[in-house]
Amino acid sequence: MAADQLSATLFALADPTRRGLLARLANGDATVSELAEPYDMSLAAVSKHLKVLEGAGLISRGRAAQWRPCHLEAAPLRNISDWLEDYRRFWDRSLDSLADYLKTMPRPDDSGA
Amino acid sequence: MAADQLSATLFALADPTRRGLLARLANGDATVSELAEPYDMSLAAVSKHLKVLEGAGLISRGRAAQWRPCHLEAAPLRNISDWLEDYRRFWDRSLDSLADYLKTMPRPDDSGA
Repeated sequence: MAADQLSATLFALADPTRRGLLARLANGDATVSELAEPYDMSLAAVSKHLKVLEGAGLISRGRAAQWRPCHLEAAPLRNISDWLEDYRRFWDRSLDSLADYLKTMPRPDDSGA
Repeated sequence: MAADQLSATLFALADPTRRGLLARLANGDATVSELAEPYDMSLAAVSKHLKVLEGAGLISRGRAAQWRPCHLEAAPLRNISDWLEDYRRFWDRSLDSLADYLKTMPRPDDSGA
């Protein structure tokens, strides 16, 4: 896995199962068995995905020995959002172009009356 | 590489060199040699990174045979931004908590006069 934090976060999220696990945790803390329930996957396989998320700082684990519920940690997601800000002007600009184009179209009330 | 588009985009971005190439393209279209200039890397290695970005739809290539400048395509970045929206409340909430905490602190003009 890449050494820098942003790469680790993006890599951890580049998997639909791991994004699914995060989406579940967005609804509240959950144990590994609860998280595994919707997946046709061994607990070991789910634990492996959770380790990747934990390594990227996207989740933390409770301390209670057997229970250890997983908890969503949003700070790395915020870092992605901050990184994306530099590029936002590109899609905002596309929206501007669309708006400009739509302005050249005749309006419904131009056609009649 | 993962089959779904969002995973492909996140995977492509999970590398500091590829993010660097995108950052350069945010300043304008560039050829492979121009893109390779700041890197201590063969043109072949840079081309390989560009292929990953192109596969994820993050760049497109011009048609002129030898020239083929690379162009940033922002749509996949926008998809990440849309995906992140579901999580924004988690860090906005953290900011709310900080704001609440700061409200409990004495204000500078509470101490004197």
